Amino acid sequence: MDLIELLPSLIQKNQTKIVMLVADGLGGLPQQPGGKTELETAATPHLDALARRGVSGLSIPVRLGITPGSGPGHLGLFGYDPLKYLIGRGALEATGIGFELQPTDVAARGNFCTLDKNGLISDRRAGRIASDESAPLARRLRDVKIPGVEVFVEPVKEHRFVVVFRAAGLGEHVHDTDPQETGVPPLASKAARPDSQRTAEVAAEFVAQAQKLLAGEAKANGLTLRGFAARPSLPSYEEVYGLNAAAIAVYPMYKGLARLVGMDIVGQAQSLADQVGVLRDNWSKYDFFFLHFKYTDSTGEDGAFDAKVKRIEELDDIMPRIMELKPDVLIVTGDHSTPSMLRSHSWHPVPTLLVADHCRPDGCERFGEADCLRGGLGQFEARYLMPLAMANAGRLGKYGA
Amino acid sequence: MDLIELLPSLIQKNQTKIVMLVADGLGGLPQQPGGKTELETAATPHLDALARRGVSGLSIPVRLGITPGSGPGHLGLFGYDPLKYLIGRGALEATGIGFELQPTDVAARGNFCTLDKNGLISDRRAGRIASDESAPLARRLRDVKIPGVEVFVEPVKEHRFVVVFRAAGLGEHVHDTDPQETGVPPLASKAARPDSQRTAEVAAEFVAQAQKLLAGEAKANGLTLRGFAARPSLPSYEEVYGLNAAAIAVYPMYKGLARLVGMDIVGQAQSLADQVGVLRDNWSKYDFFFLHFKYTDSTGEDGAFDAKVKRIEELDDIMPRIMELKPDVLIVTGDHSTPSMLRSHSWHPVPTLLVADHCRPDGCERFGEADCLRGGLGQFEARYLMPLAMANAGRLGKYGA
Repeated sequence: MDLIELLPSLIQKNQTKIVMLVADGLGGLPQQPGGKTELETAATPHLDALARRGVSGLSIPVRLGITPGSGPGHLGLFGYDPLKYLIGRGALEATGIGFELQPTDVAARGNFCTLDKNGLISDRRAGRIASDESAPLARRLRDVKIPGVEVFVEPVKEHRFVVVFRAAGLGEHVHDTDPQETGVPPLASKAARPDSQRTAEVAAEFVAQAQKLLAGEAKANGLTLRGFAARPSLPSYEEVYGLNAAAIAVYPMYKGLARLVGMDIVGQAQSLADQVGVLRDNWSKYDFFFLHFKYTDSTGEDGAFDAKVKRIEELDDIMPRIMELKPDVLIVTGDHSTPSMLRSHSWHPVPTLLVADHCRPDGCERFGEADCLRGGLGQFEARYLMPLAMANAGRLGKYGA
Repeated sequence: MDLIELLPSLIQKNQTKIVMLVADGLGGLPQQPGGKTELETAATPHLDALARRGVSGLSIPVRLGITPGSGPGHLGLFGYDPLKYLIGRGALEATGIGFELQPTDVAARGNFCTLDKNGLISDRRAGRIASDESAPLARRLRDVKIPGVEVFVEPVKEHRFVVVFRAAGLGEHVHDTDPQETGVPPLASKAARPDSQRTAEVAAEFVAQAQKLLAGEAKANGLTLRGFAARPSLPSYEEVYGLNAAAIAVYPMYKGLARLVGMDIVGQAQSLADQVGVLRDNWSKYDFFFLHFKYTDSTGEDGAFDAKVKRIEELDDIMPRIMELKPDVLIVTGDHSTPSMLRSHSWHPVPTLLVADHCRPDGCERFGEADCLRGGLGQFEARYLMPLAMANAGRLGKYGA
C-alpha cells in the first residue's frame, strides 16, 4: 500500500490551520568552494527565529539525483509520489496557462512549424516566431469545427500553443506528430492504443483544417502536435487529507497544479504582500493554504545570486505577517533547488522548515542548507511533508491498534 | 514507476567522465568501544582532501539491516534495486568463475557427494574433497552428451562445480536435487513450473550419465544440483544511463557482475597500479569506469584489522594518479562493509564520497564513518548513487516540465 492510500483512513478533523509556503527553487549552491548559498547569504532573522522554534531538514523532491520540473516538484510537496502520479506534457502545458482541464479533455502541445512547397518541415519552430505574431494565428485555429467535439486553442509563447479536445471517449494515447527533424513531413496522427483511435482521428481532422487556415502564412504555415494527455487522475486534498485547501499563487502554472489536486484558487494576488492579504481574508474559510512565491526560482534561473538573496530577504520580511495569523503548522520549503550558479533547476535537496507546537526541536539556529543538513527532519522525500504536516496538526489518527 | 525505468527518458549525453571506485567491504567497526574503524585509523591524506572538496554520506547497500553478498552489493551500486533484480545462485556461481552466460543458458551449482552402496547420500560434500582432486572429475563430466543441448561443466572449488545447459526453451524453474540431508538418495530433478519441464529432463539425463562417469570414485561418486538459474535480465548501462561503461577488475566475479549490466571488461590488471594504468589507457574510450579493489574485503574477512588499514592506505596512495585524469565525477564507496571484527560482510552502511564541481559541500574534513555520518549525502540506498553521479555529470535532464 502506498502511504497516500493509507492516509484517508487516519483522518481526524479539527480546527487547525496549515500553511505551506513554497519558495520556488529555494535551494542553492555557494558561488565558490567554502562559500555560502543564496539562502545562507540572505539576512533572514524571522526565518532563523522560526528555525529555532521548529524542525528543519532537506527535502528530496523526487528521488536523489532527479531534477524535477514544476509539475513533479509540486506533486511531491502535495504528497503525491511523482514517480507514480504523472502529468502528461499536454496537460501540464494547458495547466500552465490556466486552462481548466475537464475529465473528458485531451490536451496536446502544438508547435507552429514552417513547411516548404512540398509539405516538408523546413523549420520545426516556425523561425521562433514572436508571440505577438503567433497568438493571433493560434486564435485563428479556433475556427476548426469537428462534429461532436469541442475544440479549444490557446496561444502559449512564440511557436507554442495548446489544443484541447473535449468529448466523451477520447483516449490520451496518441503518438506525437512532430517527426523531430526537418526535411520530412509532419507525421500522421496515430493511436498508440486502441482506446485512443477516436482521438487520433480528431487530431488528424484538426491538423487538416488548421493547415488550410494557415495556408499562405510565411513562417507558421504548418503545425505539429505533441504530448497528448488527459487531465491526470489525482485523488483530491479532501479525499486524501480531509482538508479544505486554498491556493494563493500569482502564476497560472501553480494555480493549475493546485487545481489538479482539488484546491480552491483564491484571490487575484499580484505580489507577496497581496498573497498574505488574501491569506488573511480567507483564514477562516480553509484548513490548508498553499502560498507560492515564484521569484526565488526566476532569479536563480537568471543566474542572479544577489537578486535571489534579495528575494529571499523579501520572503523573510513577510513572515511576521503570516505568523500573526498563528498557523498551527507552518511549512517553508521549495519544490526544488535552483542554484544561480547553474541557472537551472537542480537535483540538490531543498531546505525545509516545519514549525508546530509538537515538533521535536533540533537545535538548528538558522534556516539554511548547512543547518538543514543537521536538522531533525533529516533528508526525506518531499512526499512525506504532508503526512508530517497532518501529524503536527493533530489531524492523523493512529495506524493500527 | 521504478526510478531505473524513468532514467532512460532523462538521458543527456555529453563528454563527461565518471569514475566509480569500489573498495570491496570498505566499511568497518572499531576494535573497542570509542576506537576508530579501519578507515578512520588509516592515514588517508588524499581521500581526506577529496572529502573536503566533495560530499560524503553513508550508503545502504540493500535496505537497513541487510548484509549483501557481492551480487546484490554491486547491483545496488550499479543502480539496480537488489530486491527487484535478482541473480540466481547458479548464475552467480557461473559469473563468479568468469563463465559468460548467454541468454539461453541455465546454470546450476553442482556439489559432488558420496553415495553409499544403496545410493543414499553419506556425505553431502564428498568429504570436502580437495580442489585438485575434484577439478579433474568436474572436467570428466564434460563427456556427458545430451542431444540438442550444449553442456558446460566448470570446476569451482573443493566439492563445488558449475554446470550450464545451453539450448532454446530451457526454463530456470527447477527444484534443487540436494535433499539437504544424509541417508536419503539425491532427489529426482523436478520442474517447479511447466516452462521448465525440459530443463528438468535435461538435468535428470545429465545426472544419470554423470553418475556412471563417477562410478568407482571413493569420495565423489555422486552429485546434486542446486540453484538453477538463467542469466538475469538486466537493462544495460547503455539502456539505463546512455553510458559506454568499462569495468577494470582483477577478480572474475566482479568482471562477471559488470558484464551482466553490459560493461566492457578492459585490461588484464593484476594490481591496483595496473588498474589505474588500464584506466588511463582507456580514458578516451569510455564514459564510465568501474574500478574494483578486492583487498579491503579479503583482509576484513581474515579479521586482519591492521592489514585492512594498510590496504586502505594503498588505495589512498593511488588517488592522485586517478585525479590526474580529472574525472568530472569521482565516487569512492564499497559494495558493503566487512568489519575485521566480524570477519564477514555486514549490514553497516558504507562510507561514500562523491566529488564533482556542482556537489553541495558539507564541511566534512575527513573520509571516514564518523564524518560520513554528518555528510551531505546523508544515509541513502546505494541504488541512488548512479542517479546522483549522472546528475553531477550533467547527464540527466529535467523530469517533467
